[in-house]
Amino acid sequence: MALVVIGGVAAGLSAATRARRIDPRLEILVLEKGPDISYGACGLPYFVEGRVQDREALIVYTPEYFRKERKIEVRTNSRVASISHPRRELVLESGARVPYEKLVIATGARCDTSGISGADQPHVFTLHTLDDAGRMRRFLAERRPRRAVVIGAGYIGVEAADALRRNGLQVTVLERSGHALLRDDPNLTSAVARQLDLHRVEFRTGIDVPSIEADSVDGVPCDMVVVSAGFKPNVELAADAGIQLGRTGAIRTDDRMETNLRGVFAAGDCAEVTHLVTGRPTWIPLGTTANKTGRVAGAAAAGARDRFPGIVGTSIVSIFGMAFATTGFSAVHARAEGFDPVSARIEANNRARYYQPVKTTVELVADRTTRRLVGATIVGDDSAAGRINVVAAALHARMRIDDFEQLDLCYSPPYSPVWDPLLIAAQQLRHEL
Amino acid sequence: MALVVIGGVAAGLSAATRARRIDPRLEILVLEKGPDISYGACGLPYFVEGRVQDREALIVYTPEYFRKERKIEVRTNSRVASISHPRRELVLESGARVPYEKLVIATGARCDTSGISGADQPHVFTLHTLDDAGRMRRFLAERRPRRAVVIGAGYIGVEAADALRRNGLQVTVLERSGHALLRDDPNLTSAVARQLDLHRVEFRTGIDVPSIEADSVDGVPCDMVVVSAGFKPNVELAADAGIQLGRTGAIRTDDRMETNLRGVFAAGDCAEVTHLVTGRPTWIPLGTTANKTGRVAGAAAAGARDRFPGIVGTSIVSIFGMAFATTGFSAVHARAEGFDPVSARIEANNRARYYQPVKTTVELVADRTTRRLVGATIVGDDSAAGRINVVAAALHARMRIDDFEQLDLCYSPPYSPVWDPLLIAAQQLRHEL
Repeated sequence: MALVVIGGVAAGLSAATRARRIDPRLEILVLEKGPDISYGACGLPYFVEGRVQDREALIVYTPEYFRKERKIEVRTNSRVASISHPRRELVLESGARVPYEKLVIATGARCDTSGISGADQPHVFTLHTLDDAGRMRRFLAERRPRRAVVIGAGYIGVEAADALRRNGLQVTVLERSGHALLRDDPNLTSAVARQLDLHRVEFRTGIDVPSIEADSVDGVPCDMVVVSAGFKPNVELAADAGIQLGRTGAIRTDDRMETNLRGVFAAGDCAEVTHLVTGRPTWIPLGTTANKTGRVAGAAAAGARDRFPGIVGTSIVSIFGMAFATTGFSAVHARAEGFDPVSARIEANNRARYYQPVKTTVELVADRTTRRLVGATIVGDDSAAGRINVVAAALHARMRIDDFEQLDLCYSPPYSPVWDPLLIAAQQLRHEL
Repeated sequence: MALVVIGGVAAGLSAATRARRIDPRLEILVLEKGPDISYGACGLPYFVEGRVQDREALIVYTPEYFRKERKIEVRTNSRVASISHPRRELVLESGARVPYEKLVIATGARCDTSGISGADQPHVFTLHTLDDAGRMRRFLAERRPRRAVVIGAGYIGVEAADALRRNGLQVTVLERSGHALLRDDPNLTSAVARQLDLHRVEFRTGIDVPSIEADSVDGVPCDMVVVSAGFKPNVELAADAGIQLGRTGAIRTDDRMETNLRGVFAAGDCAEVTHLVTGRPTWIPLGTTANKTGRVAGAAAAGARDRFPGIVGTSIVSIFGMAFATTGFSAVHARAEGFDPVSARIEANNRARYYQPVKTTVELVADRTTRRLVGATIVGDDSAAGRINVVAAALHARMRIDDFEQLDLCYSPPYSPVWDPLLIAAQQLRHEL
């Protein structure tokens, strides 16, 4: 087979599709270890919540679609056991051998529950695959649990807490670190804590969970547990084949997503990428990056010359309808990365004063020496998405706060105040510098 | 008086306030020709509509506030008749003389109805001041008009049409040019026309209106008329004093907003600014620019060194709840500015497929030679505001489409699809180049 892709979700199928576009005659095979392909993993919490009713709604394309419409062969339940690059051959768990000329590794990431004893009990869940979500839905319907513990206050953790709370459960979130959303950002963590509290979700930080009991976790009584901590890239297959990992622990690639083995590419949650604010490798597994790096890997595997310059770490999550958006680094993280961070945080109306405004909070972080913006946190209504993206564009452009302050942003009373919250924050930050 | 500011709305009061911040002891006087100061002119249509109930809600600060809290003297109903710069003196219409050391001209702009006969009838309105809006509200309440004609399909024109339609009137919009929102952009004009039609507002282009009859305009029967065409900068006072105008007809300044007369600054709707996409002067009178240039003029007048680099022409307007957002140039305009424009237009979901998405349309325009983005038009729900601002930031950064396509924008199902509409449009545009 000319091109084999390991992994049939975001990155893998993006790679296969892009390769097909570039080379209509290329033989392409996708091997997916699970029973489903091409599902919106980021939609799983909404399926658990019940907002998305059918699991089929989360499936974008079926293997049949790929076969017929894109001439891409897709095999589900096909777990790869090993890669022999000298022979250009994969060995499947079934024992079957699959030759390849080019290989894209899109093995994703997982919640590593191995450090938690009792994680294999039937009332303990992760929320990573369509199967996970289906199993959780059935458990909710059949067992009618009343109290849940969520371990980990990352994106999936808070989304799961939101989904379970909306199903009427009492929910407690236990987070090992002192902060929420994987970001050392005290103001963000406070805002998340307030929002969870407002919706009567208990949130405790600094809680390490070594074990899950049958009816409690760390003394918190519960009927079900969601583990959304210990996220790790699935790199074992690659590492065993001699593929280099980076310092982040994920697979190292160049900007065409090629690994140290010629003709072997990696994409998605198993690969590291360049953080454009520092120029250094980072591992921030997100769906957007998976799709983008998949496309680039597929293009490269098909002989085209796309490149993936990197990310700036933009993300957003809804917790009970409030948006928590971040890009670049928090002040604490910026310092750890070697910057001399200065930050300013403001609260402002999202719209004109006389047009039923709601409050939005903007924190901007710049480097004192270069005056470059290095990060932002925005909490508020849906408009936080657009505003964080403006900062993301500024980070891509390595914009200084002085130039950012001058941005010609749109204004009309239904959409913003005449001084956009971003510009108010920028003015404030300039005063601090 | 150390600093005199002519004009007490957005630019003038921004200038006075900024000057006060910089120099706590400066004597500052603001002369406003009308009875009101510091009102949100962009909110007038919402006052006409009735969404904003009290005219006071549109007033940000009173003269008393400025006097007490900012030690800025404000005189309303004080029209300046002439400027004698050799004497550093203003002559008011009342005959009084006001000396100045530094002068900020923030005389704004107006709807020039002089070319339309019958424009002085009591059922004919402009919508530029708080008085205009108050008069219109009273007319609506007392006379209960049933049919209105709006002359001009610029921002105020379509907002007035929206406001009157929501008051139950039959509304016809007559536009002289072939396009809406002052932008030669056929797709945008079609979208505006469709939205107006959907809400049963008649929209006719190519209609020159030389006269307004007592009960009709251009054969369209009506009980009231709103003129929102012929917008012109108020530059006569400045021109008579020997202040240079630019090719746009507005006052020319440097990037500190200083005119050709030392110590005389201009800001707001009466001044031209640099268009950062071309580097050439332009005149796009908008509230955001008025506030920003006012601030810079005030800083300069107080001896500080702020600068105003320019604008990229970003704007947004709501028509019956749908957002029409633009930045930079349309393809037609870009060609007229000397670019070799290539554009791509896509329709995409604003959110994840399974999260009740609505359609949004994105058109991006790039220059074929340099591959730089030069403009965008976005039509859709509220998220259009954030997305147009991302393009605005890219225009500020002179970003190429290739870099724009790589932007790390946030993703979560409630806020966007995994491929943001901006990135889908960028991919499409790259194919066209």
